[in-house]
Parts: sequence; C-alpha cells; structure tokens
Amino acid sequence: VIKKAFEVKEVPTPNMRGGQGTGRQLQYFKAEEFSTPLAAFNVITMDPGVTVGFHKHEGSEEVYWILEGRAKVRDDDKVAELGPGDALLTLDQHSHSIENAGTSPLKLLAVLSNQVKK
Amino acid sequence: VIKKAFEVKEVPTPNMRGGQGTGRQLQYFKAEEFSTPLAAFNVITMDPGVTVGFHKHEGSEEVYWILEGRAKVRDDDKVAELGPGDALLTLDQHSHSIENAGTSPLKLLAVLSNQVKK
Repeated sequence: VIKKAFEVKEVPTPNMRGGQGTGRQLQYFKAEEFSTPLAAFNVITMDPGVTVGFHKHEGSEEVYWILEGRAKVRDDDKVAELGPGDALLTLDQHSHSIENAGTSPLKLLAVLSNQVKK
Repeated sequence: VIKKAFEVKEVPTPNMRGGQGTGRQLQYFKAEEFSTPLAAFNVITMDPGVTVGFHKHEGSEEVYWILEGRAKVRDDDKVAELGPGDALLTLDQHSHSIENAGTSPLKLLAVLSNQVKK
C-alpha cells in the first residue's frame, strides 16, 4: 500500500488530549488499514504555543520521534527537551505530554500501537 | 523512555534480506523494549547500490517512510519511485523490496509490528 505525501491530507486537531491551541496532523494510516495492532502513523505539526496535554496510555503505547523544531516533553515525572532525531517511547500504563519549546513549528512522527503483550 | 539521537548507535547491516551492499541502521527500540507487538523502530541509510531484497511478511507488517533521497520500491507486483514523505505499508502476507534510486544516500524509517489481528 503506497501513500504518496501529496495524497495525505492535513487535518486540524484542536486541543490535543486537552492541550492548548490547534495542531495539524497528516494521518498516513489508520487502525483499520493495518494488519497488526498498529493504530496510527501520523505526522503532527505544532506551532509555538500548541501543546498535547499530559495523558496516560492504557492498553496502548506511543513513539514520538522529533523531525523538526524543539520539544519540551514530560515522560511520567521527568521533563526533558528534545530535538530532531530524539525519541520518546511511552509504554502502556505510562504518561506523557509534549509542547513546542521553540519559536518555529515543531514537527514529529507519532506511532501508536495497541494490544499490550501479556 | 527517552532516546536521544546521539545515544543510538549506527549498525552496519550487510545484505539486508538478501539484498546488495551494506546498509546502516539506527536501532531506536527493539522488540523487547516495547509493551505492544511493535518489533522495531529503525532509521536505515542506504548508499547508492544498496538494496533490501524482495521478501514476504508472514505474521508481521512494516511501514517504510522515506526521509531523504529517492527509492525504488516493489510492492508485491507493482514498482514505484518514492521520495521524502512517501510511505509504503506492507501488510501481513505481502512482499516488498527497496533500493536506492538516486545518487545520494537514501534514508528511511522502518517500523515493524508483529501479531496479526484475527
């Protein structure tokens, strides 16, 4: 299944997980398109001031991988600043939030997966 | 779990899936680090001449997402050229190969997931 970049439309997403402002998401693949418990493969753009609220993953996990810009993340009770090439893996039963920590757009890949291993 | 880019070491990987030459892989997370059936989150660099051989996914699926350079992919019986931002999703029971179709390094993200849904 090939998805060319130009075929993927950008969707405005206000108040992500209770966060501030409106992000934009390129939704490459949705849960029903995958044959395994992969549930999302999205590129998220967050202008300065946009945040994803702190939230817990229950029955899922997510990888954030920074593409452009600067991010301030909370990883459970730890806070860190990330840049391009840095990753945050939030396992089942763990929590995260992310905000733009710079003055230019923050762009990241978010990969979500369900069905926690026994 | 935070992985800074500088912490991820690049591993030379010869003859990927029976392909030609030696690729280089940044292995961000391995199967045992995930809490769901995610099995790999790797950035692969392929110099001109390097290929990943045509192979079938059985009990897994994989997303290739092009970061830099030009790729020629085979998606079952279809051939296509992909560039930055383009994606190839290879579902369970389907096959793919990829080669550098340009004159500069090809860089892509490869996300592998196991445990096919019933």
